[in-house]
Amino acid sequence: MTAPDHDRLARAALTHIVEPGDEHAGRALRRHGAARFLELLREEDGGVRDREAPSDPSEAEPFPGTGAGRVEGWRRRARTAAPERDLELVTRLGGRFLVPGDTEWPRQLDDLEDARPIGLWVRGPADLRGWALRSVAVVGARACTPYGAHTAATLAAGLAERGWVVVSGAAFGIDGAAHRGALGSGGATVAVLACGVDVAYPRGHAALIRRITEQGLVIGELPPGAHPTRSRFILRNRVIAALTRGTVVVEAQYRSGSLVTARAAASLGRHTMGIPGPVTSGLSAGVHELLRGEATLVTDAAEIVELVGSIGQLAPPRRGPVLPRDLLAPATARVLEALPGHDPAPLTAIAARAGTHPDHTLAKLYELHSLGFVERRKDDWQLTNRRTEASNARHGGT
Amino acid sequence: MTAPDHDRLARAALTHIVEPGDEHAGRALRRHGAARFLELLREEDGGVRDREAPSDPSEAEPFPGTGAGRVEGWRRRARTAAPERDLELVTRLGGRFLVPGDTEWPRQLDDLEDARPIGLWVRGPADLRGWALRSVAVVGARACTPYGAHTAATLAAGLAERGWVVVSGAAFGIDGAAHRGALGSGGATVAVLACGVDVAYPRGHAALIRRITEQGLVIGELPPGAHPTRSRFILRNRVIAALTRGTVVVEAQYRSGSLVTARAAASLGRHTMGIPGPVTSGLSAGVHELLRGEATLVTDAAEIVELVGSIGQLAPPRRGPVLPRDLLAPATARVLEALPGHDPAPLTAIAARAGTHPDHTLAKLYELHSLGFVERRKDDWQLTNRRTEASNARHGGT
Repeated sequence: MTAPDHDRLARAALTHIVEPGDEHAGRALRRHGAARFLELLREEDGGVRDREAPSDPSEAEPFPGTGAGRVEGWRRRARTAAPERDLELVTRLGGRFLVPGDTEWPRQLDDLEDARPIGLWVRGPADLRGWALRSVAVVGARACTPYGAHTAATLAAGLAERGWVVVSGAAFGIDGAAHRGALGSGGATVAVLACGVDVAYPRGHAALIRRITEQGLVIGELPPGAHPTRSRFILRNRVIAALTRGTVVVEAQYRSGSLVTARAAASLGRHTMGIPGPVTSGLSAGVHELLRGEATLVTDAAEIVELVGSIGQLAPPRRGPVLPRDLLAPATARVLEALPGHDPAPLTAIAARAGTHPDHTLAKLYELHSLGFVERRKDDWQLTNRRTEASNARHGGT
Repeated sequence: MTAPDHDRLARAALTHIVEPGDEHAGRALRRHGAARFLELLREEDGGVRDREAPSDPSEAEPFPGTGAGRVEGWRRRARTAAPERDLELVTRLGGRFLVPGDTEWPRQLDDLEDARPIGLWVRGPADLRGWALRSVAVVGARACTPYGAHTAATLAAGLAERGWVVVSGAAFGIDGAAHRGALGSGGATVAVLACGVDVAYPRGHAALIRRITEQGLVIGELPPGAHPTRSRFILRNRVIAALTRGTVVVEAQYRSGSLVTARAAASLGRHTMGIPGPVTSGLSAGVHELLRGEATLVTDAAEIVELVGSIGQLAPPRRGPVLPRDLLAPATARVLEALPGHDPAPLTAIAARAGTHPDHTLAKLYELHSLGFVERRKDDWQLTNRRTEASNARHGGT
């Protein structure tokens, strides 16, 4: 299923026009739809031409409650929007632009209501929706301590080994350690950027971000070429919080951005977790504050999975897949068929049998995992245990 | 008020006969009273002489539900009990033997029900009941890290500066650091021993324990000369938990004795708190386990006081004293009168005006603090702010 192209094009333009998380724009989008919203911004006289006798009464005042300055900013940026060029550029980079309604759209973002991203620019071989279903955010301070970096990397590796996707913000410090920990254990990771997906920020992480576009997913709300700002960093955090089943804060000072992510996660009903540290460390003070409030103290990946793993309606591996095999995309089905009947197999063997690149095979394996078809056992993958399934069905009732 | 001497003498004997926390003995004590319980143990034929026609039917079977082996052990130790000698020895050391009913008896120990101490051997100048009302236990591992020792000492100093009494077990590691932190900031501390109050255990803490007998309180359930055993250490912990308003665990491995204290505190309705540490430290693993359950994460003395300070019915300083001045013991009243009318004064000045030794003056000041008459301000003491009292009365209602 793909959304109509005029909606996609309008939304691509709007990611250039509207700052992330602008709820005024969210309301306008809900009221007018993306194409008409864009049209209203592009009309010469500001969409109030027919104020005396409007054809549609709702357009007499198209943006009620939205200040003139904000609308003026939208109009100004509407003049420089070039969505066809942006879409083409991202396609050339092997990427895509997702909009609500797409099969790959992660529906948990709808919890953000009017602050929901207008669309998501995506690079990488995996299915974002499938990955997000079994993902955990690992976030924290840029200027972290060696203890924090070590802990973030260890947690991320442990999560990856248990088949969970590690989501973070590609920043220095905890974020980078988390991405590297996941990649380093042959796992899945998603970087949510506060800039265009073609912009390597921070520059010192250019190689890391490139690696994630090849083996994981790099996503963002901002169009190609857009640069991060302070407010974009902060608003990016709500996407990390909404996309994942829980957020783990590893190190954070008082009033740090990671606490914003954690509180956003809590307010969205996601699990909020914190890694304790020495009370003598200012970099743990923010985490401890969180742990004295809404967050749960966790000390390792097993405890995190125990908490976020109760995914009930989604696709718990114990209950087996929720989607019939014949609804899988052909490339995904091919990877599933490449798994041996009973025994676990390493990624390279599965990739060879499926005839796909290992990075793509891994992407599909995590997707199949989130759908309950396969499980990760240390470095190997195997089909979900049918006996467990059968035994659950036997005990499960109706 | 003093309990009748024959009860005190019998209880002194029973501390030699019965192991701490023996609920069978607690039941017998409740049923027969201390003097008759002791008599029953001393009777040649085991108190069942008149089984055919008992004078009191309850004495046909004096210890129902208690195994013969346990009773035999009591009888055997009853033969060697020498309570007069023990009481004389402790008096010579400047100590005393408290029993339920004494004014100085800390009534919160009654929460232990049949495991309540039979009596308490006490050395030191302070009033145990008054001190216990505003006390916090700081406990943890013997083989602690420098981080743990530093944190325990800092917490204890902070508690002492806020007028709180630090209770611990005089062991190496966290316990010692806590006692020293309190003493080092001119504060009050209580050591609860698992041996006689004349026995310096561990030997390496002989000087510390001596200092506490001079400036604080050294207490225990066991008679003079008794040595600690593994089970005595464990059972001592219930006294620490029951005596205090809350227990803070600083460092503890899985299955450590400090966790026993913390869980005892929780089951008695006391506040249970833990100091987090690195997840990479095995010495914080037990604390983290506790924090994932019943305990509250705390990072400094202010947070501890915030939690345990809501002492409502007891004597919150904001509401002012609950006891009329003329009910104070003469020595305590003399120290209260030695405080200047408005300004804070240092301990030495107050001691000089009261004409008492500084150690004794400090003991009385903490007692007056727990009764709401005085407050500690850093290193000085002052009368409780009458304006606060008046303003609370104005807002307080009825």
